[in-house]
Amino acid sequence: MVSFESDYIAGAHPDVLKALIDTNLEQLPGYGTDQYCESAKEKIRTACECPDADVEFLVGGTQTNAVVISTLLKDYEGVIAADTGHVSTHEAGAIEHSGHKVLALPHVNGKLEAQTVKEWVERFYADGNHEHMVFPGMVYISHPTEYGTLYSKAELEELSAVCRRYDMQLYLDGARLAYGLANKQTDVTLPDIARLCDVFYIGGTKCGALCGEAVVFTKNNKPQHFVPLIKQRGALLAKGRLLGVQFDALFTDDLYFRIGEYAIEKAEELKAIFEKHRIEIYLPSPTNQQFIILSNERAEKLQDTVSVSFWEELNETHTIFRLATSWSTTEEDLKAIDNALGSL
Amino acid sequence: MVSFESDYIAGAHPDVLKALIDTNLEQLPGYGTDQYCESAKEKIRTACECPDADVEFLVGGTQTNAVVISTLLKDYEGVIAADTGHVSTHEAGAIEHSGHKVLALPHVNGKLEAQTVKEWVERFYADGNHEHMVFPGMVYISHPTEYGTLYSKAELEELSAVCRRYDMQLYLDGARLAYGLANKQTDVTLPDIARLCDVFYIGGTKCGALCGEAVVFTKNNKPQHFVPLIKQRGALLAKGRLLGVQFDALFTDDLYFRIGEYAIEKAEELKAIFEKHRIEIYLPSPTNQQFIILSNERAEKLQDTVSVSFWEELNETHTIFRLATSWSTTEEDLKAIDNALGSL
Amino acid sequence: MVSFESDYIAGAHPDVLKALIDTNLEQLPGYGTDQYCESAKEKIRTACECPDADVEFLVGGTQTNAVVISTLLKDYEGVIAADTGHVSTHEAGAIEHSGHKVLALPHVNGKLEAQTVKEWVERFYADGNHEHMVFPGMVYISHPTEYGTLYSKAELEELSAVCRRYDMQLYLDGARLAYGLANKQTDVTLPDIARLCDVFYIGGTKCGALCGEAVVFTKNNKPQHFVPLIKQRGALLAKGRLLGVQFDALFTDDLYFRIGEYAIEKAEELKAIFEKHRIEIYLPSPTNQQFIILSNERAEKLQDTVSVSFWEELNETHTIFRLATSWSTTEEDLKAIDNALGSL
Amino acid sequence: MVSFESDYIAGAHPDVLKALIDTNLEQLPGYGTDQYCESAKEKIRTACECPDADVEFLVGGTQTNAVVISTLLKDYEGVIAADTGHVSTHEAGAIEHSGHKVLALPHVNGKLEAQTVKEWVERFYADGNHEHMVFPGMVYISHPTEYGTLYSKAELEELSAVCRRYDMQLYLDGARLAYGLANKQTDVTLPDIARLCDVFYIGGTKCGALCGEAVVFTKNNKPQHFVPLIKQRGALLAKGRLLGVQFDALFTDDLYFRIGEYAIEKAEELKAIFEKHRIEIYLPSPTNQQFIILSNERAEKLQDTVSVSFWEELNETHTIFRLATSWSTTEEDLKAIDNALGSL
Repeated sequence: MVSFESDYIAGAHPDVLKALIDTNLEQLPGYGTDQYCESAKEKIRTACECPDADVEFLVGGTQTNAVVISTLLKDYEGVIAADTGHVSTHEAGAIEHSGHKVLALPHVNGKLEAQTVKEWVERFYADGNHEHMVFPGMVYISHPTEYGTLYSKAELEELSAVCRRYDMQLYLDGARLAYGLANKQTDVTLPDIARLCDVFYIGGTKCGALCGEAVVFTKNNKPQHFVPLIKQRGALLAKGRLLGVQFDALFTDDLYFRIGEYAIEKAEELKAIFEKHRIEIYLPSPTNQQFIILSNERAEKLQDTVSVSFWEELNETHTIFRLATSWSTTEEDLKAIDNALGSL
Repeated sequence: MVSFESDYIAGAHPDVLKALIDTNLEQLPGYGTDQYCESAKEKIRTACECPDADVEFLVGGTQTNAVVISTLLKDYEGVIAADTGHVSTHEAGAIEHSGHKVLALPHVNGKLEAQTVKEWVERFYADGNHEHMVFPGMVYISHPTEYGTLYSKAELEELSAVCRRYDMQLYLDGARLAYGLANKQTDVTLPDIARLCDVFYIGGTKCGALCGEAVVFTKNNKPQHFVPLIKQRGALLAKGRLLGVQFDALFTDDLYFRIGEYAIEKAEELKAIFEKHRIEIYLPSPTNQQFIILSNERAEKLQDTVSVSFWEELNETHTIFRLATSWSTTEEDLKAIDNALGSL
Repeated sequence: MVSFESDYIAGAHPDVLKALIDTNLEQLPGYGTDQYCESAKEKIRTACECPDADVEFLVGGTQTNAVVISTLLKDYEGVIAADTGHVSTHEAGAIEHSGHKVLALPHVNGKLEAQTVKEWVERFYADGNHEHMVFPGMVYISHPTEYGTLYSKAELEELSAVCRRYDMQLYLDGARLAYGLANKQTDVTLPDIARLCDVFYIGGTKCGALCGEAVVFTKNNKPQHFVPLIKQRGALLAKGRLLGVQFDALFTDDLYFRIGEYAIEKAEELKAIFEKHRIEIYLPSPTNQQFIILSNERAEKLQDTVSVSFWEELNETHTIFRLATSWSTTEEDLKAIDNALGSL
Repeated sequence: MVSFESDYIAGAHPDVLKALIDTNLEQLPGYGTDQYCESAKEKIRTACECPDADVEFLVGGTQTNAVVISTLLKDYEGVIAADTGHVSTHEAGAIEHSGHKVLALPHVNGKLEAQTVKEWVERFYADGNHEHMVFPGMVYISHPTEYGTLYSKAELEELSAVCRRYDMQLYLDGARLAYGLANKQTDVTLPDIARLCDVFYIGGTKCGALCGEAVVFTKNNKPQHFVPLIKQRGALLAKGRLLGVQFDALFTDDLYFRIGEYAIEKAEELKAIFEKHRIEIYLPSPTNQQFIILSNERAEKLQDTVSVSFWEELNETHTIFRLATSWSTTEEDLKAIDNALGSL
């Protein structure tokens, strides 16, 4: 049985694990004040070409979204997101639990369009009653999106301009950023993201780390007293080194980018296998998540040997599944699915 | 200048005011433990034909919605509402401020259809991932709706059945309940509402009181220790008598129902005036709120003498306005708008 | 049976009630945008000699404390208060419900001493670990205190200086401010309070209104978008006039001050009655709340004819009771207690 | 430079790290549904002699306290704790951030006495006004306490009895439980704790893991739908294996207990070194945290070669420091401090 269920089915990339092993016995101060955190932050600033950025490490994706959104928004503000956005649907209401509304707008292939945002915000301010409504304080996007799709640089620039114009912060959820940056067609670089967004995070958990996300505040906008803010949200690790050491490894010798490239390569091979077996694609994705349509019968048979992720029902007879590649995807995994699809 | 802006443009109905005056110097205990609160509760239980109901008085509508929803839901639950529902759009995010998501579903003339709810909930439970999503713990409806429309008894029964089946509470926002009950075509009575809903409120502020809403828990489901729960939400009045005396008056000699009937009568006269002047109706409403479409030019002229409420832009040249009648609407008010519309 | 239970046993002061009656049928816009709110605000600014103050009306005391504290504090901040302060003990945890810790410090006769605050804050900042603790963002005092005592101007100045020095806001809870201002020995005026505090409220509920408190922000520090902030906290009244009309009356012809003076006069008469009957005073109070000690037997007998408020057990045989005077205290009430105490 | 700053200065115990290495490439399902989580839970249930316990893994101590307290308390309840308890002082207000008050009571050597709790609760229920106060819903204790002290079995039984009687839950914070269990004089075992508490956690972070705490619900009292509850609190790890694998290792071959014993042994050696150099002990601790008093001069000199933790100022010339041992304390560390203290 091999698994394409997600990009978090394995532990840490071997180089990340090695860094943890190598530093395991070092005596280091707690709560993220160690030298590895410092070094990792500096490497991230360099990679972002944003020397003044404030970088902070948090443990997981939903935690990061809730911390960033709830510490940057005013009480009367909510966050605009695509209705398919992770914060809109799959965080068990973490944003609302923090007191803020997710203002869900229609998506196009998982993406939020600048025009959609602009029209909504203009209508909001035109409404004489808007002091009785939730103010738009931030725009949340994910890149890659929940459907594996990517924004172009022009699209990010438009979104950024709308945010500037209406005094909203632009926040990019980079849970799978490595795969977005590694795509060969993309014209969006890490420095572009740092320039166009007010805050974003570089995902570790789904890109080679055991856990950990690096939040980057790019506009001198890190909330004051971030330590108590995250401590009271249960997000401060005593052994902060666990995050520092891992991100230091991820940003040494371009490991983060190489992890992305490898997974994209494997995703291309996977797509070739789909094509070979004439598997219907639900939505073409340029990154490491692939969405296919299978009849329920074939799906059941496939899952005898290959584990994939239920995405949603297409209709009564067919279902959409997600398959993800990562640094841990092997040739054997690909052979196994090739065989499995061949024998359906 | 006369005003049809809302049903809260005047103070209290004269009989309500008289009750306040008559009891003003009585020495009464605080925090809702006085005899007028008790008497009002008993009269409401009788009117609801629900002798075991728990009745509690709160100050305003948004406060009531936030208190009811946040004290009855579990942390992992949200509330289903029409996307036009008051809790979805016009409470400045009060429900989210209390930590709960409003799960907004499409409306039909301001109403939530049982089928819409049923399909959404079934899809929710069919999703293998639903433990990462917000659970539907309650269905919120308003009656009359924000568009003045009314549920039929059959519709309420269907909604109630869906709620029973999927273990959700049915909550009816009766901010303008007097106008809903007074409509001549409606087959929905106060006892029907008490029977079909788990909790609802009888609106005072918009139906003749200075302030105040009466929450009715019909299924022995009042949250334990309601006093500290509302105290910590800033909703406990020291002079609870202010609410008790008013509701006692409203439920004496059917005043609440007579207020509704009077306003509906005036609304019918208003509709006749619209027809006479061939004013376009946006959405036919059987209650005290009427929605009309005016060209922006005519609207501006109208508002020289009659104040109405901007509802929303229809298009670049036309706008939707709301006009409301109430116990305080006079023949002079109606004459004034007749004249004003005649001279447009 | 007469009652000295509290200063909220009666309805509204007759002049306040008259203002409500006189304006009852006027058509006014909602949500505090009417002319009476404006007029009341202006009169309060004048009385405070603080022409730039922002005045806002809220419904009750606990609500006001929670709104002021939670909208002015940062997430990582708490509020320092006397351990006998209303926010520390008798608001059912409303401040904590809003996410903020009450940092309770020892009181002296219900008052917080500047030195106590200063030492605590200095120890806080000296602690190397203070980023793991709750920051002191505000100092809360009540004037009169929960024990009826009053700060002197010198004491307020010292507290204000400590707040300035350590960048904390000074907030004064004036639930019973009328009685504090009316005391003959006090050297503290309303303009003093406006000058020394960042924010305070002028209590209506306990000083002659049916309900309502007037918050005064004195340092251009009203939170931005106050309307949605209070709306989402359930504190925005549709008929804002209810508060505006009452405060307009209270600040016309010095009514608020006269109410205070009358109650203080009655309190002095009450004290004379205590002295005459050699009733033991628990704590000498210069304002309208008086605290006496009675044996449990005598207490029981007293309460056959006079209703007083249990305060706390002194020991197994004696109990502390609170008696309050107000605008509604009559000569008959005083005679009744004189007789009752005489026959114990 | 050697460090006795804390018990979280090193990475993971070598056996824990080995388990992470050995399982690193295994393909496992996410969110704590893997076999290692299951195995670890079963081993913990066995060690607790509590076959029906529900065990859940969380990431860190403050997060665990906030999750346990906020999911088990009702809105109107707070948690009783010693005023020196971690939740009272050093969690940046995490409990209040979740909406609940910490009801801080006086400690004795860091411990909460049953009598103190009992008297407070009885006074609470005797107060006629207690519906305006925060209800005591839970008692929080730490074992070992923040001062390294331990409860006896008799003390735990008394606390447990008070909790039963007044319908409060007993929650034990076992951040350093390994050191409490390993003490030679203690008569408290893990099964005792499971029997006497409603919920407790077995600390991983400070007892050999990279991160992670195991919450044990012993009375069929795990909150329903725990997954969305922790997800919305940002406490659900995608790679739940990180916690399962570590706790599985910690509860294999008694590793958790051996880690405790080793650290206690080293603490005894450290105490002998203090005695040899006549270092004054602030408070005798039977566990791995030791508190000493040094003059500020000597402290400064010591810290040239040995890093220790500032605890609090004793007076103007002397300071209290904390030193902690752990599995990572070496003979070299002890020699270094022996030398350093010798040359003061």
